[in-house]
Amino acid sequence: MKFCLSVAALSFGSVAAFAPSAFTYNTMKAPASSSSLNMALPEGVTPIIIGVAADSGCGKSTFMRRLTNIFGGDVVGPLGGGFGAPGGWETNTLVSDLTTVICLDDYHLNDRNGRKVTGLTALNPLENNFDLMYEQVKALKEGKTVSKPIYNHVNGTLDTPETIEPTPIIIFEGLHPMHDDRVRDLLDFTLYLDISPDVKLNWKIQRDMEERGHSLESIMASIEARKPDFDAYIDPQKKLSDMIIEVLPTNLDKEDKKTLRVRCIQKEGVPDFAPCYLFDSGSTIEWTPSPEKLSSPAPGIKLKSGPEEYFGSKCQVVEMDGNFDNLQELVYIESALSNTKTKFYGELTQAMLALADAPGSNNGTGLMQTLAAFAIRDLYEKKSAQAAKAKKESTTAAAAA
Amino acid sequence: MKFCLSVAALSFGSVAAFAPSAFTYNTMKAPASSSSLNMALPEGVTPIIIGVAADSGCGKSTFMRRLTNIFGGDVVGPLGGGFGAPGGWETNTLVSDLTTVICLDDYHLNDRNGRKVTGLTALNPLENNFDLMYEQVKALKEGKTVSKPIYNHVNGTLDTPETIEPTPIIIFEGLHPMHDDRVRDLLDFTLYLDISPDVKLNWKIQRDMEERGHSLESIMASIEARKPDFDAYIDPQKKLSDMIIEVLPTNLDKEDKKTLRVRCIQKEGVPDFAPCYLFDSGSTIEWTPSPEKLSSPAPGIKLKSGPEEYFGSKCQVVEMDGNFDNLQELVYIESALSNTKTKFYGELTQAMLALADAPGSNNGTGLMQTLAAFAIRDLYEKKSAQAAKAKKESTTAAAAA
Repeated sequence: MKFCLSVAALSFGSVAAFAPSAFTYNTMKAPASSSSLNMALPEGVTPIIIGVAADSGCGKSTFMRRLTNIFGGDVVGPLGGGFGAPGGWETNTLVSDLTTVICLDDYHLNDRNGRKVTGLTALNPLENNFDLMYEQVKALKEGKTVSKPIYNHVNGTLDTPETIEPTPIIIFEGLHPMHDDRVRDLLDFTLYLDISPDVKLNWKIQRDMEERGHSLESIMASIEARKPDFDAYIDPQKKLSDMIIEVLPTNLDKEDKKTLRVRCIQKEGVPDFAPCYLFDSGSTIEWTPSPEKLSSPAPGIKLKSGPEEYFGSKCQVVEMDGNFDNLQELVYIESALSNTKTKFYGELTQAMLALADAPGSNNGTGLMQTLAAFAIRDLYEKKSAQAAKAKKESTTAAAAA
Repeated sequence: MKFCLSVAALSFGSVAAFAPSAFTYNTMKAPASSSSLNMALPEGVTPIIIGVAADSGCGKSTFMRRLTNIFGGDVVGPLGGGFGAPGGWETNTLVSDLTTVICLDDYHLNDRNGRKVTGLTALNPLENNFDLMYEQVKALKEGKTVSKPIYNHVNGTLDTPETIEPTPIIIFEGLHPMHDDRVRDLLDFTLYLDISPDVKLNWKIQRDMEERGHSLESIMASIEARKPDFDAYIDPQKKLSDMIIEVLPTNLDKEDKKTLRVRCIQKEGVPDFAPCYLFDSGSTIEWTPSPEKLSSPAPGIKLKSGPEEYFGSKCQVVEMDGNFDNLQELVYIESALSNTKTKFYGELTQAMLALADAPGSNNGTGLMQTLAAFAIRDLYEKKSAQAAKAKKESTTAAAAA
């Protein structure tokens, strides 16, 4: 399906779930309702490392907010101080007691002036320091502290490095988390946010044309200019990911340019990860929920679930096309989902309601982000349990010797 | 969809689920596993009357066998003796301790010679004695014995009438059970077997061309000759029915002329009847079962469920397209069905297995016939319970007075 750019395409409200939001990383209390995990890195446990790949302007910040909401932890905010601190830019790193979110832009090899000399874009791997990235991911995974550079997005310079202490969950998000084999092998779980070109254009129009006054021509030219490097270096990572969240235009109405169809593609055979599905494992199901139990604005709502092949890999896909009218009713969808990795029935709905004002909370982007967050929490807890068990066994063996 | 008549259309094996089978109404014991209902007409209970409309050669006999199998009863066979009795034809009426199945052909006004004089077909209401039909349905419903004519299909004459005693469940099956308003108003539940023209042609080819050596031209001429009266007098009854079982060519492969798609259309708002559905009430669901849990020959198997409009009436539809490889695995489908009116999980599968050799047991015709049979049993039991309650209340009131 191809979206035709038209006047209709220029008006869309709260669709930009992954698009930059007004939310900034100021100190945020995790809601009391979310189940709080152990705060410190438990003895014998090394961090779990998650890679999240996505283009800039795809709403990683909203996704990170959903992740930290579910992981819990008392203090969530930027490392050091905050964007609002005097002097402007400080850090790209978001921390809570439990999680650290590192932006891979910090591994840019050259500053903006340096790239003018090389003539390469930041999308090009040659402009990124994968040797340092590998060393630091490896050190953090071993529980060691690192001194990480900071790329200043405001003025395009490389600032004084900052100290990163390992936390139980470390998320590496940016353009190339799965590009380098050495880095990729260290990641415990990988996620790719795949925004279709039509949706990405709509989001950029919303941000750059409507909010910043850029012309449509300049927006399209900028997308075209990025496209070769994006296709060559970013896009190929999706084949390598454990989970891919695809954001596409709706299939419910060809004329509708606002509503999103979101697919959560989950690889089979990933250690400690059982894919989520609707109603029945292994079945292919298309589901139009009862309008009496779930109200939705035009063009309606439709879910799908079933096994698929994705670049030769066996996957389980859950899809949602359309918007919720009333987020409370998500509990009805939750009742049809299995392997959500929630701890009680209703926790998925509760997590979505806790961030009801975040972009995408009324559609599949919020739902799939939240499912991904529960999957990552579950992976962490399994890994912690395994480490605790191994420690207990070695203690018992030592005592017996 | 239109079937093209081709050589492929001439070869099909066990598809004729409603088509005449080798089964004859000889004495048959209901299987021990089926839950046997009360044998005699309980005090205060009047018979429940079911109308089943279908064209000739649409396998009503198989359906009746499924019904009597589920209703139970010690003796199942033709009233009087059996088709195999010396002298040939005896009766069209099938009885068990619990059920009586009356063929409406017995209400033909004229014998075959008489119709030669009038020039009308047996499909024409003018050739059927609705006054007598109404009187006898009414009498039986009141618990009275009637003396019913017998139409002899072998020689086309009207034989000496037979005595029909009321049993708890009486089924009127034939061409016109819902044609006459007075008769229709007496029916507690109505069912229409709607075989699509393409499937009907295939079945007639199988029976009349392959088994009886008729020419294709004569078969098609005979269908064409019946069509105007069928469309005028039989087909309109489907709008008036509580349940319609539609038998259509498969949608899974346009080239496949054998596999059937069967839809059970269940009206909403019928007293004491809650429609069956897959997975979730009120939702529209398309389901391709997991091939690891349910094996099926090409072109596979697909089920659907959801609300629909049928000639302006609100309905709930359950559909199955394709065949089972292994009937034992039907229990997996059963687990996804609600409102089957079974008394325990597995009873639907058990009922299908008990008649595994009957035509249509490997496809949706057998499944939907069996669902209809459970619905009718449930209606009967509700009616009996209501009668028993009413009797108890009147006894209590009389004692108090």
